Amino acid sequence: MELFYSNDIEGSLCRLGNDESMHCIKVLRHRSGDMINIIDGKGTLMKCRLIDDSPKGASAEIIGAEHNWGGHPYHLTLAVAPTKNADRYEWFAEKACEIGVDCIVPVIGQYSERKVFKTARVEKILTSAAKQSLKGAIPQICPPISVNDFIQASRTDEDGTLKMIAYCFEDSNCPRRSIKDVLANFSGDRITVMIGPEGDFSPEEAESAVGCGFIPVHLGTSRLRTETAGITAAEAVYFRYMQDFIYV
Amino acid sequence: MELFYSNDIEGSLCRLGNDESMHCIKVLRHRSGDMINIIDGKGTLMKCRLIDDSPKGASAEIIGAEHNWGGHPYHLTLAVAPTKNADRYEWFAEKACEIGVDCIVPVIGQYSERKVFKTARVEKILTSAAKQSLKGAIPQICPPISVNDFIQASRTDEDGTLKMIAYCFEDSNCPRRSIKDVLANFSGDRITVMIGPEGDFSPEEAESAVGCGFIPVHLGTSRLRTETAGITAAEAVYFRYMQDFIYV
Repeated sequence: MELFYSNDIEGSLCRLGNDESMHCIKVLRHRSGDMINIIDGKGTLMKCRLIDDSPKGASAEIIGAEHNWGGHPYHLTLAVAPTKNADRYEWFAEKACEIGVDCIVPVIGQYSERKVFKTARVEKILTSAAKQSLKGAIPQICPPISVNDFIQASRTDEDGTLKMIAYCFEDSNCPRRSIKDVLANFSGDRITVMIGPEGDFSPEEAESAVGCGFIPVHLGTSRLRTETAGITAAEAVYFRYMQDFIYV
Repeated sequence: MELFYSNDIEGSLCRLGNDESMHCIKVLRHRSGDMINIIDGKGTLMKCRLIDDSPKGASAEIIGAEHNWGGHPYHLTLAVAPTKNADRYEWFAEKACEIGVDCIVPVIGQYSERKVFKTARVEKILTSAAKQSLKGAIPQICPPISVNDFIQASRTDEDGTLKMIAYCFEDSNCPRRSIKDVLANFSGDRITVMIGPEGDFSPEEAESAVGCGFIPVHLGTSRLRTETAGITAAEAVYFRYMQDFIYV
């Protein structure tokens, strides 16, 4: 299924940006009158008829709309520290989008080797991943923020969000429950998981997170890279809400 | 933790190959008498004392051994069709190793675009992934085999292996259970999951698999790429056997 993306919508008129117009008109050779599918990146699939086939700025008339298209029954925020190798984070973002995530927050920890992070490339990757995996909503990539600021910001979450921090606590004797079992006992649908950098969180960061209501969890006994831990957290939530039977 | 790999073991003598010797002696500058950790790739971690520090062929004396080191409580075979883009399969192999897999089988289906597959690169990736994620066992990458031959070969599995095929059955009205729930009702520990190519299995392949005892399962409602489906299957098994509490 061929999908385009546009956030330029006015009433029943939908304009495609440069790249999408070029792809739609020059590459796929669509012409005025053709029916095309456009996502608004917020969860809606729009069935549209092309009314202007200029390769620089095509536009289409919205005929029908399907909301929460390709959506998932939860709201997941993954606050994951940037990896040393940028490819690994981009890979994580693509996979998290395929599985189901709403918001990715690059959190910079005390032990983070990478302190700066550019969101532009990840934004592109998330857009094409959403189109490829047939989702109307494109996950949001937030600007980088320090672990401490993120903890303080989520302190005020009064919406029943389940907040978890995956931390080794190797230097403490704090027992941790598995993310699977903590999720199994949660009846809400808003979840935040925080994953640290290669060097893990600092003990201070972990303490302050727990003090602000983050539940310390483990992701099992395997030693996972940061990006794999991020995917594993996304899968844990995905499986928590997975329905048993599907009748085609 | 610094790990080396060797499959050249005679009694209490362990020889390192070219690359490992070079890395151990030239790069890390180890000298005779140093204690080093070596995995045998079959699950055992060996504490060794270096007795020959030649960069072309170092050797060490085995002082102690820890079996099933970094192991997991199940035996998982992932039969996954090669992806068009080889990087995606290599990435899948690395991640599956981190999470926990025993055997990866590249299965070529009727609808596979990639009919040939070289295992050499994946072998290298699995070795470094096992070392990086602190596992004594290196997952096996089997030579490519056709989907039909794989189905026939596993027909004779008389060891109570749970065999599943992730297939869309979009053209049939076969109800499928989720891999999560099928695993939840399984009390054994040997599991095989078969994942098809971008074009999915052919209806004939799917029918013959089901006829040979493969349970048709779904991986949830998200539309996953082949390599993501492979990881999702690995995570489903990983979570099935995950223990709740970990006391550090």
